[in-house]
Amino acid sequence: VVRIPTSPVLASSVISELRQIVGAAHVLIDPDVTATYRTDWTGRFHSEPLPVVRPGSTVEVQEVVALANRIGFHVVPQGGNTGLVGGSIPTKRDSVIVSTSRLQWIDEPDLLSAQIVVGAGVRLATLQHALLGTGWMFGVDLGARDSCTIGGMVATNAGGITVVRHGMMRHQVLGIEAVLGDGSVISHLNGLEKDNTGYDLDGLLTGSEGTLAVMTRVLLKLRPSQLRTATAMLGFPTVDAAVSATALIRRSVPSLESLELMLPSGIELVGSAFGWEVPEGMAGQTVLLVEVAGAEKVEDELANVCDALGTVMTADPAVALSSSARASLWRWREAHTAAIATLGVPLKLDVSLPQKEIRHFIDAVFRLPAPARPIVFGHLGDGNLHVNFPACFPKSTSEAIAAETHDLEVRVLALVSLHGGSVSAEHGVGVAKTPYLSMTRSASEIDAFRRVKRALDPLGILNPGVIVASSGD
Amino acid sequence: VVRIPTSPVLASSVISELRQIVGAAHVLIDPDVTATYRTDWTGRFHSEPLPVVRPGSTVEVQEVVALANRIGFHVVPQGGNTGLVGGSIPTKRDSVIVSTSRLQWIDEPDLLSAQIVVGAGVRLATLQHALLGTGWMFGVDLGARDSCTIGGMVATNAGGITVVRHGMMRHQVLGIEAVLGDGSVISHLNGLEKDNTGYDLDGLLTGSEGTLAVMTRVLLKLRPSQLRTATAMLGFPTVDAAVSATALIRRSVPSLESLELMLPSGIELVGSAFGWEVPEGMAGQTVLLVEVAGAEKVEDELANVCDALGTVMTADPAVALSSSARASLWRWREAHTAAIATLGVPLKLDVSLPQKEIRHFIDAVFRLPAPARPIVFGHLGDGNLHVNFPACFPKSTSEAIAAETHDLEVRVLALVSLHGGSVSAEHGVGVAKTPYLSMTRSASEIDAFRRVKRALDPLGILNPGVIVASSGD
Repeated sequence: VVRIPTSPVLASSVISELRQIVGAAHVLIDPDVTATYRTDWTGRFHSEPLPVVRPGSTVEVQEVVALANRIGFHVVPQGGNTGLVGGSIPTKRDSVIVSTSRLQWIDEPDLLSAQIVVGAGVRLATLQHALLGTGWMFGVDLGARDSCTIGGMVATNAGGITVVRHGMMRHQVLGIEAVLGDGSVISHLNGLEKDNTGYDLDGLLTGSEGTLAVMTRVLLKLRPSQLRTATAMLGFPTVDAAVSATALIRRSVPSLESLELMLPSGIELVGSAFGWEVPEGMAGQTVLLVEVAGAEKVEDELANVCDALGTVMTADPAVALSSSARASLWRWREAHTAAIATLGVPLKLDVSLPQKEIRHFIDAVFRLPAPARPIVFGHLGDGNLHVNFPACFPKSTSEAIAAETHDLEVRVLALVSLHGGSVSAEHGVGVAKTPYLSMTRSASEIDAFRRVKRALDPLGILNPGVIVASSGD
Repeated sequence: VVRIPTSPVLASSVISELRQIVGAAHVLIDPDVTATYRTDWTGRFHSEPLPVVRPGSTVEVQEVVALANRIGFHVVPQGGNTGLVGGSIPTKRDSVIVSTSRLQWIDEPDLLSAQIVVGAGVRLATLQHALLGTGWMFGVDLGARDSCTIGGMVATNAGGITVVRHGMMRHQVLGIEAVLGDGSVISHLNGLEKDNTGYDLDGLLTGSEGTLAVMTRVLLKLRPSQLRTATAMLGFPTVDAAVSATALIRRSVPSLESLELMLPSGIELVGSAFGWEVPEGMAGQTVLLVEVAGAEKVEDELANVCDALGTVMTADPAVALSSSARASLWRWREAHTAAIATLGVPLKLDVSLPQKEIRHFIDAVFRLPAPARPIVFGHLGDGNLHVNFPACFPKSTSEAIAAETHDLEVRVLALVSLHGGSVSAEHGVGVAKTPYLSMTRSASEIDAFRRVKRALDPLGILNPGVIVASSGD
């Protein structure tokens, strides 16, 4: 296990050194001021009062990490703090949060190469805004776009609803500038789509959740904006039929952009929570929301696949072309989270399964003893399911309730493991899933993770509670 | 620098142990029998006589690597031996070639998940054959398809003519089973498209050129076969105009499959070498070969972009729909290598540049003093150029000629570095480019490569002459 050599109290002398590096205004120590940095937005993870440092340059990040190596304190990098697994909240008292909030550079997009270099602290919405009118867009989009940062999205290898088209964040990253755990700086921002010189450090840092490096800048690939988008809601009698249809759609719809799953229980909950009338023929059905984006007449691809699926579907598909009609279909999928929240704080799990196991896994989840009926939905096109048990964390949490919820979480993840899935599809490991990593990754793999960690962060400075934390941590 | 602890002669006792692991028939020691394994197909790289071991299972690979760690010899993994940079030919006498030729498993494709698991030794053509009629295809194709292996393609992160659509090998790999340098086995073949549990070892091993692990099995993503393909040849007055057109085509042609560059000197050479008549209007022009693949009427996308490019092009585009007409366009691009070979053995360099530097780089290459006019062509859509100087290696190689060719190679790679490019776009580093790695990667990056190498191959057993070799090696 990687261990920091000493465990100092963050003495005033250290604060003073941090102030010299980043300027006094950017070392926050007042507990009221640092409160928002020390609690994640789910409210499940929080840390004791500790300093928040906001470097304004790569050199300042490097100096902070070098100081951490010299003095012996932990560094927890933090972007928009919108993660769902606690990865940006310190687990140890001798920690400093390094916020990327001042790393706000945004270069002119290189429209010849379809690339852009942005600072780690740039918010997704800011990037999207900068690209408007260029003919290019960014390939990953998330509900948290106004808060989440590009650095955080790279660190967690974020996914979303267009992975079936563009892949995850790792597929958008062409290069990274970062400060490794030992304080050395690497920079690979020369703007190349192909570069087979050496190991793929960019891909390795993507998804490393702040445990190997503090990212400072990223070179991102851009995708062509599409002229025309069409959306359809298709109803099926069973999950099995929807999974088969998913394979056909992926195979025969070249312009496929999204392929999302909803189940009868989720549609019913959304309808009753918001008083919406379920689209005709979709009540009680397993529903796929399918979106295509491309050149003119892209909706023909949808029409063709609906013809091919004809007898399998339980009703005529609802097809939408205008943005308002499309939104009226998408709201059913997007309102799942809010509808679940109307029942109380849910247990939320983000898992992936091989397609052939999805039906069996969903059946098994619905058979589990639980305080509420599960709501399962997600990105079926990539085998990613969001499993929610509503109202598992009542406001007046008792220890018994916490134990029951923990037990339910373990049971669901055991089912994931049994069916060959992953305990984290797109949310990452963070603090929340680190104890469960060994359910789906082998001892050899975890040992390899630890050896890679030690190679790039020899003293174990960065984010010690995440991924490679020993069970004793 | 990582060093093997001892440097033993491969004594008969070691041969005997290897025979016990893989069976006597699969330890080849006769120099005549091992000759084809010890020389690469370019003829530039060869090793002294040494044993070739052909394990038949992952366990046998593991036992061979464990023996190498115990006794202290080097292991050089070898697939189809079709690489262009010498990465599969040992550089040290105390080496054993581990051939993947018996790792020939090919599972039934999983048509629900669009995935397939294959052994590292499976040839690309075998995989292509297995997928015929399934509606799915593999996303990377190469001229060496009858010889190259999937393991070798993953190890070198192979590219080819469809990277602009599907990405390189790294984008096709969903999981890897491999024996790491220390002899531990990792396996991540559960069939998931999304799995954010831990570091991306799959991506790290992809492109590691046999220096971190011996791959035994790979889980590959499949791509939908397309119904219809169309190809066009477009002529431009300058490289600059072709680069601008490339950006427009990438932005506005959703079904873009390939985007290749040819220059007047290459077209002229191909025409004269094979007695072909240059397609109308293309003589003396900078030519783009553009292919689209998609649903019915995909050629409309080509027609639209040709309309948009109208006044920039120097002639009417040649558009081909039938496979014979398409082949008559493609042969101009594909025959470049053979036409260059008619002049003698060329100096071949595979480099990438930012799009905005391509014109300046090509201008500079044509101004270099050289024994023959350069022929430059390649995958312009991804900024990848193949720079060839014909007849640089005459059969009767004198030392003076070798020095002159070496000098030319250094000058071209210095230009690559000056223009922010990479000394290897898709061929890898191998033995050939290891000395030049520091021209485009920083000392910090190379140091990080070495630390990763040491983490997964602590004794430096695997492929010691490649990527992380010290200058003293």
